[in-house]
Amino acid sequence: MTTTRRGQMKLGAFFHPTGHHVAAWLHPDAQIDAGTNFRHYARMTQAAERAKFDLVFLADAAATRAGNMKALRRWPQYMAYFEPTTLLSGLAALTENIGLVATATTSFNEPYNIARRYASLDHISGGRAGWNVVTSSNQAEPFNFSQEKLPFHADRYGRAREFVEVVKGLWDSWDDDAFLRDRDEALYFDPDKLHRLDHKGEYFAVRGPLNVARPPQGHPVLVQAGASETGRDFAAQVAEIVFTAQTDLAGAQAFYADLKGRMAKFGRAPDQLKIMPGLNPIIGRTEEEAREKHAFLQSLIHPDVGRELLSPELGGIDLSGVAVDEPLPESLIPASVDGSQSSFQRVADMARKEKLTVRQMYERYGGARGQRTVIGTPAQIADQMEEWFLREGVDGFLIQPALLPTGLDEFAATVIPELQRRGLFRTEYEGRTLRENLGLVRPGSRYAQP
Amino acid sequence: MTTTRRGQMKLGAFFHPTGHHVAAWLHPDAQIDAGTNFRHYARMTQAAERAKFDLVFLADAAATRAGNMKALRRWPQYMAYFEPTTLLSGLAALTENIGLVATATTSFNEPYNIARRYASLDHISGGRAGWNVVTSSNQAEPFNFSQEKLPFHADRYGRAREFVEVVKGLWDSWDDDAFLRDRDEALYFDPDKLHRLDHKGEYFAVRGPLNVARPPQGHPVLVQAGASETGRDFAAQVAEIVFTAQTDLAGAQAFYADLKGRMAKFGRAPDQLKIMPGLNPIIGRTEEEAREKHAFLQSLIHPDVGRELLSPELGGIDLSGVAVDEPLPESLIPASVDGSQSSFQRVADMARKEKLTVRQMYERYGGARGQRTVIGTPAQIADQMEEWFLREGVDGFLIQPALLPTGLDEFAATVIPELQRRGLFRTEYEGRTLRENLGLVRPGSRYAQP
Repeated sequence: MTTTRRGQMKLGAFFHPTGHHVAAWLHPDAQIDAGTNFRHYARMTQAAERAKFDLVFLADAAATRAGNMKALRRWPQYMAYFEPTTLLSGLAALTENIGLVATATTSFNEPYNIARRYASLDHISGGRAGWNVVTSSNQAEPFNFSQEKLPFHADRYGRAREFVEVVKGLWDSWDDDAFLRDRDEALYFDPDKLHRLDHKGEYFAVRGPLNVARPPQGHPVLVQAGASETGRDFAAQVAEIVFTAQTDLAGAQAFYADLKGRMAKFGRAPDQLKIMPGLNPIIGRTEEEAREKHAFLQSLIHPDVGRELLSPELGGIDLSGVAVDEPLPESLIPASVDGSQSSFQRVADMARKEKLTVRQMYERYGGARGQRTVIGTPAQIADQMEEWFLREGVDGFLIQPALLPTGLDEFAATVIPELQRRGLFRTEYEGRTLRENLGLVRPGSRYAQP
Repeated sequence: MTTTRRGQMKLGAFFHPTGHHVAAWLHPDAQIDAGTNFRHYARMTQAAERAKFDLVFLADAAATRAGNMKALRRWPQYMAYFEPTTLLSGLAALTENIGLVATATTSFNEPYNIARRYASLDHISGGRAGWNVVTSSNQAEPFNFSQEKLPFHADRYGRAREFVEVVKGLWDSWDDDAFLRDRDEALYFDPDKLHRLDHKGEYFAVRGPLNVARPPQGHPVLVQAGASETGRDFAAQVAEIVFTAQTDLAGAQAFYADLKGRMAKFGRAPDQLKIMPGLNPIIGRTEEEAREKHAFLQSLIHPDVGRELLSPELGGIDLSGVAVDEPLPESLIPASVDGSQSSFQRVADMARKEKLTVRQMYERYGGARGQRTVIGTPAQIADQMEEWFLREGVDGFLIQPALLPTGLDEFAATVIPELQRRGLFRTEYEGRTLRENLGLVRPGSRYAQP
């Protein structure tokens, strides 16, 4: 492998409550009460900071997951958990360097409230906040907000685009040097350095100014994860980090080239967006040990959950009576489905062409739900990460440990030192803020004199 | 004084950024960058916890203050500061016992989002969250939320009442014992103990369930500060703490008797609501020293700010050209005003009857803006507090130090020990949660079997 690419990779730690694997909570090493255990998150965040991770990341939704209760009661991911901006504010108080990225939807919030909370988190943390901007696709969410259905996809992004513009404008309300704090002259601030936004758009009318000083980072780091055509354009326009699911290098390289290529039309330099696909590492002292660990996790998937994982991909057919250790009867597979054709084809082919049992199907499909799992020794995992990084498939990775907290601890103890030995990852934080550690420019205010 | 009343008083610490006094930031002891200094709040909260305060309290608004920039630039209170739920989440991580009460408006939030954040704060803090429920009266706020004006007063309270009902219902989504976490049976929760709210009301339709486990306190403590007829009924119905401005004992006793008397019609016991008027202590080793400290603070009020304090009470007249060391010219005083008649009369009488100078007027009226200031030695201040408590004017006090952090430190070092010596205040926390320390019952779930 030719080491032509300079620089080091960026690493995020994705804190699913008990771990990324669908059966994580059933493993004896998982923190079983993670959804209400603040100390669990505190210990993990401090461990991630000792390992020099760029950031920790929390997903979010504005509803419990919908589905079959017979399965959900055995699969509690994102049923009950901390609200991310409050949790990260607590974690900010216990850390010094690590970035703190929380998800919040543009569909069921107001820009003024979101601008305030992330600006406040940025001040609390001394410049370590990031906002993962999402549009809601969960059909259950509108019903929690006096609405009956989600807007169309394009409309969700239209609102998101305007929402982000308003939030960025509000963050600029006070110039960086607006606060004089001059006791002799009794002047606390300079009114010429306080700006009303006076935004009137299609979705929002927001006057401002924001009642929080400009954040230490200027703007908290903007994160995005949209993969659709509209989502990619939105990311190319506003995102500074993109999380994405990529399972093979060629696909990752194509996504990387496509997304970076879209940035020029928005006047942005390619290095101002960091592409960090998800990576679920299963680490063993030997490859065999890693495979055994993975097999044990897979064996923990309850058949009720396995069927619930496959059913939506097969057009929502009822699999409740199906034996899991036999092939899926051809008669149950529908001729066509309304949803994703590629997912349907992939799952149907497992049954028709490979003649897999139902259990084999849900283990292959369901353990990591479309995300990339890498199973092996620390050196093997580092090899994979190195190759993807050097061959411009990624700027870094969002590490999604199958189990928490042990999966994070193992990665920090074994893979991180291996990456550091190879010069691929930092041994000390470069800067004080998330933006500085990522190598992202601090945005000037829209009101600054040229 | 006959010590007939049993029990001890409750104490809260109100953290204005630099202090309650209108000129606090100009004093050399005030933390001048309080609005962006997390460590300032951390030190104060830890000091308040060492002193065994029941709670710290943060006010809030969803806009910068409106007014004359010539004055506001010299009077920066609530122009730029932390968002309370994020700030208190950070402070929760650094403390163990003290209650954490944040203000959030029902006018420009959604109940699902508020229910989540306060439930999350309650989990982060192990049962120490409180929500100060307010309706927005700040004319600037609607313009930050795509609206042009505030709803009428009664409508604000109608929305607030329904909002609180929805939030309480959402907090009950999961029974206290819903989470089985049973690995042997692969059962994380019992679906029979998860409840949809299915609320459809005048202002909101909210299906639920909430995606946060039931808070440690059942419901975070509900706080209210409305003084109008509608506000008092609302408080009697839902509040567990009431903050109020009372400047004389007879008035405090009347308010106390009135509010407690209203509770029976809502089926509530009087001791399930704690009435805690504001108290701004100015402490000296001698009474003379305290008076000098107060006079020095008053002398720091800039004439621009003084005029801005008086103008609204006089119908908004322009006082910018008026000399402050002369009486207010009779010709400037309007015959009548649209606003509060009692405030107008009080201010007009200072000029007409007492012939006060403009400076004397704004010093008397403006330093504490209608809140009670008590000036004296620690024993004198404790005497006042004891009398109000024993004579059933209060259940406790919301201490509003004129200057922060020093005003809090002085109170903790001198008045608290005096109250403890008299048996009027705790020397150790009684319980683990805010509710336990206040002596408030933990609410059962609305879905609990009788």
